Amino acid sequence: MAGPRVTLQDVAQRAGVSRTTASFVLGGRRDMRISADAERRVIQAARELSYRPSLLARSLRTNLSQTIGLLSDLIASDAFAGEIVRGSMATALRGEHLMFIGETQGDPELERQLVHSMLDRGVSGFLYASMYTRTVRVSATLREHRLVLLNTLSRGRRITTVVPDEVEAGRTAMRELIAHGHRDRIVLVGEQAPHVVAASDRINGIQEVLSQHGTQLAGTVDTLWWPEPAHAAVAAYLADGGRPTAFICLNDRIAMGTYQAVVEAGLRIPDDVSVISFDGSDLASWLRPKLTSIAIPHFEMGRQAAELLLQPDVSPQVHRISMPLKAGESVGPPPAGRRRRSR
Amino acid sequence: MAGPRVTLQDVAQRAGVSRTTASFVLGGRRDMRISADAERRVIQAARELSYRPSLLARSLRTNLSQTIGLLSDLIASDAFAGEIVRGSMATALRGEHLMFIGETQGDPELERQLVHSMLDRGVSGFLYASMYTRTVRVSATLREHRLVLLNTLSRGRRITTVVPDEVEAGRTAMRELIAHGHRDRIVLVGEQAPHVVAASDRINGIQEVLSQHGTQLAGTVDTLWWPEPAHAAVAAYLADGGRPTAFICLNDRIAMGTYQAVVEAGLRIPDDVSVISFDGSDLASWLRPKLTSIAIPHFEMGRQAAELLLQPDVSPQVHRISMPLKAGESVGPPPAGRRRRSR
Repeated sequence: MAGPRVTLQDVAQRAGVSRTTASFVLGGRRDMRISADAERRVIQAARELSYRPSLLARSLRTNLSQTIGLLSDLIASDAFAGEIVRGSMATALRGEHLMFIGETQGDPELERQLVHSMLDRGVSGFLYASMYTRTVRVSATLREHRLVLLNTLSRGRRITTVVPDEVEAGRTAMRELIAHGHRDRIVLVGEQAPHVVAASDRINGIQEVLSQHGTQLAGTVDTLWWPEPAHAAVAAYLADGGRPTAFICLNDRIAMGTYQAVVEAGLRIPDDVSVISFDGSDLASWLRPKLTSIAIPHFEMGRQAAELLLQPDVSPQVHRISMPLKAGESVGPPPAGRRRRSR
Repeated sequence: MAGPRVTLQDVAQRAGVSRTTASFVLGGRRDMRISADAERRVIQAARELSYRPSLLARSLRTNLSQTIGLLSDLIASDAFAGEIVRGSMATALRGEHLMFIGETQGDPELERQLVHSMLDRGVSGFLYASMYTRTVRVSATLREHRLVLLNTLSRGRRITTVVPDEVEAGRTAMRELIAHGHRDRIVLVGEQAPHVVAASDRINGIQEVLSQHGTQLAGTVDTLWWPEPAHAAVAAYLADGGRPTAFICLNDRIAMGTYQAVVEAGLRIPDDVSVISFDGSDLASWLRPKLTSIAIPHFEMGRQAAELLLQPDVSPQVHRISMPLKAGESVGPPPAGRRRRSR
């Protein structure tokens, strides 16, 4: 189906030189004796024929095809995390690299096949991404190649890594609540899952700021990461008489379920209870009132990871990308009647 | 950084044959006189060394590198639409093709560069996708190659195309409302945008079923495609005394805004008013009550498009993929007091 492609032979013919000569000229080789005139004719012929030198041919020589491979456990499982793909793709392109994508589905065998398929096609390096920050053991094959981990932490080895700064995000969220006057009646909504880096880091940041203010969380409503279980858990908590001045939710989906339970209990946000969250997804801006959320900078993470991958010399270290506060209208002062001042 | 790669030379050396002989054996050429013994030794050496024949080399011979290119106006701008990427990627992989991705951002010049970059790397065909169904003029360069349009209709030319069956989706939604007893007081919420294929097709299907039942839409609440304007528009409509028995929303985000306005007006879903929508996104399942929505089968569309691209002979036609109803709890009978029977 492909239309006729201008070949090196066509260029050579038009320039009146051998294919080898044309190849040397267009390949930029200066170690062969080629007359200035022949060189000029080859370049002119290439221009007139709109000849594009075959990158495949160049790849074969250098074992680089100007491509990078993005491996992820789940690609675009989340709109939001799909921004990682966009950020890395845009940056790769600026560096004149195209990007292969592959989804490992967390399956080591599928990952192995994808890695080999990409190596067969001469990729010059890998971005290895998780859709949710987690710790992995990087395969021996991957470790032999240029590699940047994205939203992923490696067990053991030092590998260039780009992750969101989740501990600082926890501090940011808690400082925002403290600044509005919340203190002793702040309740966490989420899963205290030590294996989920985002959860444990965010909670560490939260607790650090609380303890600086001589206080601690008033309680935790345990829930999985989706609206439905969050709604059920918060509804039960409120029905049991729980009356925090603020909920700090581990992500925007949990916050959505929290909103639903709060409204059903006849309470208003933020008049009766404030809500703050993490992710900064579209969902945060769709809720009423708009949800204040600490944003994961997915696009920026993808951008930085691709840049690190394309740089020739990078000493392996963990780059923590700042998570900005996206202010909504869900945080206000604690209700006056319920405010307790313990000092 | 790449580890030492086993070369054809290594295999030849181990097998005790020339590089040319090894190349012919592993390339599957049977037109050269090579002894059965030499052939056996080459294959054994290749196996022992875990030699993987270079696909790049093969690409150069056939001008195919076992890759396809996915071009899209926006990649993973929407979690949901990101399923198109997953579906096509999974199918390409089963056909032993990897997938390049490129985002055109609707910019013809960027698209041209991406197409050429992918051709330079020997892609065997293109998937050309839009995140929202629309009509495009396909560039001359793309038309010269194997091409399947995904969620995209072409102006003029006949090209293999995979789109959701939006007209049938409109019929399905309306039949669901009619089956629950709604008839004369159904209000559309959305943008009547003739250039948005999804909108006009859905509305055509809706109106077809209504006219079969001798009725028509009771009105339209005009809004853009996001929760915030939908909330404002529906709130204004209800404040003006609008009291439909059902809202039919052009997508799930509009339905989210509609939910917010309905609840704020003190009405219950579906007791006071039913809501039905299109997309079948995660959002539909997160709303309370769960939203009934006609789903876009993004993964399936990606799968079918990649399959059509990899098939050797496909006559160009438009494949319309069925959109299934995902039942939630947002559709019930019209409220008894308000029900009007006109016949």
